[in-house]
Amino acid sequence: MRAEIIAIGSELLTPFRQDTNSLYLTEQLNQLGVEVSCKAIVGDQREHIAAAARLALTRSDVIIFTGGLGPTEDDLTREGVAEALQLHLRSDPKILAEIKQRFESRGWKMHANNAKQADVIAGATVLPNPNGTAPGQWVSGKYDGRDRMIMLLPGPPHEMKPMFETQCIERLRVKLPAQHIATRTLKIAGMGESQCDGRVAPIYKRFPDVQTTILAGPGEIQLHLRTHAPWAQQAQDRVDTLVDAIEEELGDCVFSDNGDSLEQIVSYYLQMRGKTLAVAESCTGGLLAERLTSISGSSRHFLGGAIVYSNELKTKFADVPEKMIQEHGAVSKEVAAALAEGIRKRCGATIGVGITGVAGPTGGSAEKPVGLVFHGIAAEDGTEVVERNFPGDRQRIRWFAAQQALDMVRRKLM
Amino acid sequence: MRAEIIAIGSELLTPFRQDTNSLYLTEQLNQLGVEVSCKAIVGDQREHIAAAARLALTRSDVIIFTGGLGPTEDDLTREGVAEALQLHLRSDPKILAEIKQRFESRGWKMHANNAKQADVIAGATVLPNPNGTAPGQWVSGKYDGRDRMIMLLPGPPHEMKPMFETQCIERLRVKLPAQHIATRTLKIAGMGESQCDGRVAPIYKRFPDVQTTILAGPGEIQLHLRTHAPWAQQAQDRVDTLVDAIEEELGDCVFSDNGDSLEQIVSYYLQMRGKTLAVAESCTGGLLAERLTSISGSSRHFLGGAIVYSNELKTKFADVPEKMIQEHGAVSKEVAAALAEGIRKRCGATIGVGITGVAGPTGGSAEKPVGLVFHGIAAEDGTEVVERNFPGDRQRIRWFAAQQALDMVRRKLM
Repeated sequence: MRAEIIAIGSELLTPFRQDTNSLYLTEQLNQLGVEVSCKAIVGDQREHIAAAARLALTRSDVIIFTGGLGPTEDDLTREGVAEALQLHLRSDPKILAEIKQRFESRGWKMHANNAKQADVIAGATVLPNPNGTAPGQWVSGKYDGRDRMIMLLPGPPHEMKPMFETQCIERLRVKLPAQHIATRTLKIAGMGESQCDGRVAPIYKRFPDVQTTILAGPGEIQLHLRTHAPWAQQAQDRVDTLVDAIEEELGDCVFSDNGDSLEQIVSYYLQMRGKTLAVAESCTGGLLAERLTSISGSSRHFLGGAIVYSNELKTKFADVPEKMIQEHGAVSKEVAAALAEGIRKRCGATIGVGITGVAGPTGGSAEKPVGLVFHGIAAEDGTEVVERNFPGDRQRIRWFAAQQALDMVRRKLM
Repeated sequence: MRAEIIAIGSELLTPFRQDTNSLYLTEQLNQLGVEVSCKAIVGDQREHIAAAARLALTRSDVIIFTGGLGPTEDDLTREGVAEALQLHLRSDPKILAEIKQRFESRGWKMHANNAKQADVIAGATVLPNPNGTAPGQWVSGKYDGRDRMIMLLPGPPHEMKPMFETQCIERLRVKLPAQHIATRTLKIAGMGESQCDGRVAPIYKRFPDVQTTILAGPGEIQLHLRTHAPWAQQAQDRVDTLVDAIEEELGDCVFSDNGDSLEQIVSYYLQMRGKTLAVAESCTGGLLAERLTSISGSSRHFLGGAIVYSNELKTKFADVPEKMIQEHGAVSKEVAAALAEGIRKRCGATIGVGITGVAGPTGGSAEKPVGLVFHGIAAEDGTEVVERNFPGDRQRIRWFAAQQALDMVRRKLM
């Protein structure tokens, strides 16, 4: 079964805004076993809405419109879709009364254009919107002899999502062939994309019924696995078997098999092991701490640390000897180790992390090029330093460095 | 003149990937005075590509395809567009020779499917691609009696952008009516969206020829202004006059009129005034430092600071008296001021900033609810504390708090 998503709103045709509703809807539809075959973004022009709807009707079983259901003259989704379906709009007296009442209860007079929101396509089911004024609509019927399900949903995500979840999923499910979808996501650190794919491709190719998507970001690879089967257990077993085979191949490079981020995993491990963490960051400038503290409840195991951008602060906050910086330079194996040890001791943490490197674009040299980063990790059993040369721009190098440090903490806690 | 952008690739129809090329192309087209009226995203199906192309040909003067120009069986943009235009594909011997030569120079044999990349739509101009193997194509002609310009561009942004800039802009410009576009972007901090719009709407409504777009984010509002005129100076004068009027109304709430971020502006001011900055962050957990150090060269005026997540570290790194924390709580006006003063002194900075608050979702109380944040700023002339109650989730509250702190530093330096 094939779906098409049509986002409506001229603001989505500027350089500043993007349709993101379709990502959520795609995920939901995929979970139901429905693939998205096309997406369109059209402005607030009735003829463009109608043209997109007519094209979708020729080829897609499920057609979802988002946006353009408001009360202004520019909100023309109802009109455009009705035109494509060659159906009339009728004013629903119950919706109209509700809108009027909402205005009156606030002591306001309803403007005439608000009456538009009570217009319903002939034969459509009204989808209540507890989070906004514009109700949604569900139309199903045969067009050119083929079954079509059409949804008109509001544009704001906090209105659209609950409406889809409470009003649309069940209505869709009963019309779909009986099948069950199982998905898993694996996250991998400590290897590059081609290295990872080289090792896992021979495995996932043995599972042609499981759709495997590989996404690579700085310091992290994601494997998204999805399959369907007539019985839920069958689908789950199939995807779980593939997950087990990949985990066996990649070992502890797999840091999550349920979608958790690396900072979440580190937080779990710290809590589980009863350990605490402190960091001293130079080139990452707070990014590592920011990621660790983005997790709610992180104050239980993350103590804090220092941003030691200047050499003086490396000495002041993490007790790095001035002489060491003079001898080896601020970006060195020695200073990374001293930062980790110093901040661990100062903060009274179980684990200390120190990062120093050249994030660029300036400040590099032949000996210490942009992208060179030293990561120190200090614990009861000693100190380890990892040297890396990361590619990319300042932002990417900083992300890589934070990712590497988090992965070192994870491995230390395993 | 109206444009339509069609992105091709089945990966763009998953929940994980989004077409971002169209944002760049929209900005470029707008700068030429061309509006984007529709966008479509289709998978690697020839019939879907052809259908999108046929619909676009009925209504859009400029049609840009991105993606689907590679050598695999799935790359069907050439075939789909040729079908819609009812034109043949011919194999270009020069391109074919180049592809063959590229393989031979690496000692590889060219696979047969690579020959696809030499297929050119009859009458098309080949657009060289110095950054990849797939050349682009430019087709212009009359369809149903109307002038149409059609571009086939590669999908990877680092191939698509240079090709558009060097091969397409000038070809487009000569076909466009002689007009000049002027744009300005204002960024505003320290007021809400409705308050801002209430004050500037009466002004920009007097300039109906200038297109004004308001975008609101946490702690920041952007006003994008754009106009066109037959002469460049005329367009620039018009948009500059509107900028002056808005700046007069909003005063020092406007922090940038050239697109710079708040952290960039703070960096400029620090450098210009020869001042240095240090921060002590509790609830923002490193976000403020991370933003400040995201600017290349920030080490000249940003010294660093401490992430004082635990109470002990508030005392250890910023000399906040233990007794003060016991009496007033860690989230208090007093502790914010002490953090700012303590970190300023410890780091030897001109300006010290302290942030303490409840980022949530847990940790709130009736007296100190989630979203309550105290921002302290200490300088030679004394210490100031601002209390705010920010709405939203943990991430949003932290962003608001960092934004507020940056704005306080900006105002202090003005």
